Amino acid sequence: MYQVDLNSDLGESFGNYKIGLDEEVIKYVTSANIACGWHAGDPLVMEKTIKIAKEQKVGIGAHPGFPDLMGFGRRNISASPDEVKAYVKYQLGALMAFARAKKEKIQHVKPHGAMYNMAAKDKALAKAIAEAIYEVDEKIILMGLANSEMVKAGKEIGLKVANEVFADRAYNPDGTLVSRKLEGAVIHDPQVAIERVIKMVKFGKVMAINGEEIEIKADSICVHGDNERAVEFVKKIRSCLKNAGVEVTALSNFIE
Amino acid sequence: MYQVDLNSDLGESFGNYKIGLDEEVIKYVTSANIACGWHAGDPLVMEKTIKIAKEQKVGIGAHPGFPDLMGFGRRNISASPDEVKAYVKYQLGALMAFARAKKEKIQHVKPHGAMYNMAAKDKALAKAIAEAIYEVDEKIILMGLANSEMVKAGKEIGLKVANEVFADRAYNPDGTLVSRKLEGAVIHDPQVAIERVIKMVKFGKVMAINGEEIEIKADSICVHGDNERAVEFVKKIRSCLKNAGVEVTALSNFIE
Amino acid sequence: MYQVDLNSDLGESFGNYKIGLDEEVIKYVTSANIACGWHAGDPLVMEKTIKIAKEQKVGIGAHPGFPDLMGFGRRNISASPDEVKAYVKYQLGALMAFARAKKEKIQHVKPHGAMYNMAAKDKALAKAIAEAIYEVDEKIILMGLANSEMVKAGKEIGLKVANEVFADRAYNPDGTLVSRKLEGAVIHDPQVAIERVIKMVKFGKVMAINGEEIEIKADSICVHGDNERAVEFVKKIRSCLKNAGVEVTALSNFIE
Amino acid sequence: MYQVDLNSDLGESFGNYKIGLDEEVIKYVTSANIACGWHAGDPLVMEKTIKIAKEQKVGIGAHPGFPDLMGFGRRNISASPDEVKAYVKYQLGALMAFARAKKEKIQHVKPHGAMYNMAAKDKALAKAIAEAIYEVDEKIILMGLANSEMVKAGKEIGLKVANEVFADRAYNPDGTLVSRKLEGAVIHDPQVAIERVIKMVKFGKVMAINGEEIEIKADSICVHGDNERAVEFVKKIRSCLKNAGVEVTALSNFIE
Repeated sequence: MYQVDLNSDLGESFGNYKIGLDEEVIKYVTSANIACGWHAGDPLVMEKTIKIAKEQKVGIGAHPGFPDLMGFGRRNISASPDEVKAYVKYQLGALMAFARAKKEKIQHVKPHGAMYNMAAKDKALAKAIAEAIYEVDEKIILMGLANSEMVKAGKEIGLKVANEVFADRAYNPDGTLVSRKLEGAVIHDPQVAIERVIKMVKFGKVMAINGEEIEIKADSICVHGDNERAVEFVKKIRSCLKNAGVEVTALSNFIE
Repeated sequence: MYQVDLNSDLGESFGNYKIGLDEEVIKYVTSANIACGWHAGDPLVMEKTIKIAKEQKVGIGAHPGFPDLMGFGRRNISASPDEVKAYVKYQLGALMAFARAKKEKIQHVKPHGAMYNMAAKDKALAKAIAEAIYEVDEKIILMGLANSEMVKAGKEIGLKVANEVFADRAYNPDGTLVSRKLEGAVIHDPQVAIERVIKMVKFGKVMAINGEEIEIKADSICVHGDNERAVEFVKKIRSCLKNAGVEVTALSNFIE
Repeated sequence: MYQVDLNSDLGESFGNYKIGLDEEVIKYVTSANIACGWHAGDPLVMEKTIKIAKEQKVGIGAHPGFPDLMGFGRRNISASPDEVKAYVKYQLGALMAFARAKKEKIQHVKPHGAMYNMAAKDKALAKAIAEAIYEVDEKIILMGLANSEMVKAGKEIGLKVANEVFADRAYNPDGTLVSRKLEGAVIHDPQVAIERVIKMVKFGKVMAINGEEIEIKADSICVHGDNERAVEFVKKIRSCLKNAGVEVTALSNFIE
Repeated sequence: MYQVDLNSDLGESFGNYKIGLDEEVIKYVTSANIACGWHAGDPLVMEKTIKIAKEQKVGIGAHPGFPDLMGFGRRNISASPDEVKAYVKYQLGALMAFARAKKEKIQHVKPHGAMYNMAAKDKALAKAIAEAIYEVDEKIILMGLANSEMVKAGKEIGLKVANEVFADRAYNPDGTLVSRKLEGAVIHDPQVAIERVIKMVKFGKVMAINGEEIEIKADSICVHGDNERAVEFVKKIRSCLKNAGVEVTALSNFIE
């Protein structure tokens, strides 16, 4: 049987600032990446997001980022591996407190934005993140870009890992994402995006931007809840996956 | 047998900024209140402070404060009880991650500065703090000003509580601290301060500023490590307590 | 001839977070209170807001607040007058740089949220704010709650001052605003609100919550641009004022 | 006649955190680079530093940095040129307010840490910084690494520029600084450092790390005030320069 997880970044509101249709999109995903107050989110938002994740029986994940609220965690910061390791522990721990208060556990950690992208390629950062998680709770799953240094580092440390794929992004022949700065990087046709994902999940393959077919492992698909259209896409991909014989279910149900 | 804890605020450095002779004073105290990154401290400092606390076998405590690094957490902020509850969970959780990574547990929580002072008098804030701790880990001890609303709230919620006393501060007849703005608020003579503390620990009494003898419970004595003189005082109070037949030991060894 | 200013808080977006229909509401107001990056706003938002204010020929004002992005500057902070004085200088100066770059001048300063409310009643804070402005540029107008300590302090220091009134708020017999926590504090009927404002502007009077008619000076009316309905109200109040023979014009055109 | 400026980074304390012997070192330098609250400094510290700079008749400079207090502005952040331009305006403006309040003008701007290093090599960032200054006040001097992109960008925009040299750092044959990660990057012998500086000032030459003699323009020498030894070095370099016939004087006295 085919299984895949649908994950979305949630809990990105901050104080008086609201972002995302969290209460809508959470009905259709199986894992939530919850911001931990550094690049987005605040303690009240974290508490509320844990609550709705519990109600919807969605896997709870920490979504740590760089200390850069002004840049939404999307700017590279040349922090050392030791700094990043401590930042991940801090943010993971903060979210764990809210989970414990609701008798819930953290299912996974997925770094956010620039931290995610840097650690996909940088072995030392990837290792620092994996170690941080392992030292805090070795049962937590590390979610990273499929085939990336982050996934490799997680396995080496002894963590369970989840390979994340993107429905709407083109891939290079080496399995990395095509830079958003290049033409063709984003796949705009929802139907094409969904067909690509189904192929990744069922056959472990995707056509790279040069036409070559490459191998890719798809444990979780990243989806968005920023606006109504995004939520519609999530509903659609979910039903298409089901129709294609793929069970959509949280990581903790199948990652070993 | 008489027993008392000596506690000190530690881990208050931040980034390039250093405060406190942590590695000196930690040798002489039995409990460390570790800043959690909001009014002081940062993830690297928290990690290092947990490490030296473990080495010295000192009780590890979270020292949550208001989000006010510029004011060092000493300024009242009219945050709601729900906000403060979430802030305490967040900071406690963050520190717990560093403790878990070192196979250590959090012994106690002592709010910092303005949060401590406000919650000493404000029932709703005190209850919010006690609930935050209880929901995250009901075995953690809440340390608050002796006889304060915070100590009462902790007991009502079902937490173990520790009454904190100040060696160098005068008390009002109702057991509250004399405001620092008033004359006589601070006791400058170390010998007098130490004798007052011994009396508090052994006889549960202290002379209030009006000359009246009042009852006070002393589970922990607050000491400082800001400078060499402060560290000398800690050494002295520790040896005087011992000579007076009082065992100086961490809260977890005697608070029930 | 009757004259009044319509002011609105603008530039409250921050990084990836958007608040307010700034580009809509700015067409109908005559003065903009621009957040300065402490409780809301960031440098890019400040730059853009100055740009649209210049295009619409709207009076440019600094809107300094407490260092509390998480609380949107709405929480009281027990900062000292010296601290608040320095905070106002800092934020005013930051906005002045963006104004200078566009060959524009700062017309006024209106403190935000908790700073505004505290300084309306606290003489020392009010004086600190007035001094900060005077020391940086004595030609800037200080906008404060009508009849408040802030307006008095501004006059005493030698600043031009603007009395601000609220269309949708009830007044106490002493001219202060009825607390939002009390029933009747907010006037929900737009027509009633507009009639009250016209009476304030033309006759210098308003009916207090106890039915008593009190004196009030109305130099500027606070309006909002948070949502479409708020913008509709601004359009309406503007046209009603015009029909009632009141010219709606920026503070700098009539405050002496 | 030979002339050179001695500059030092000042006003780096923050809240309860103290860094630097500002009141000592300011007696011996001729220009102060004052932190503006983003990587270091706060409004009260800025106010006080302007005050002592005025008393000592030292040229007042803004020292803007990245929004990274935790990293002391020393970590690269991949901010866009537009962001950096706005950040420089913001911080420069904030400092200008404190200068205006003391009837002082800003003499120069010297970016801090990672912003300084990145803009030394990155044309777009260098241009963004130069434009920010020019748009706010075209009379301000831009101080940057001698021969760097920052100095070039300043000249192209139409600003006066000051070439900064480092007494204790080795140079590559292309005039850039030898990375601190490499052996020989730091010159530890104070006498050697001073002789190198005198040669740079008088003859416009310095021996690069490979033994080659290269051309370098020295308008200002960077010195430190972190500790007593650093202050001693400043006194010594000042008297050696004088003995070598070099006048030590603020930038504004000789940069055209």
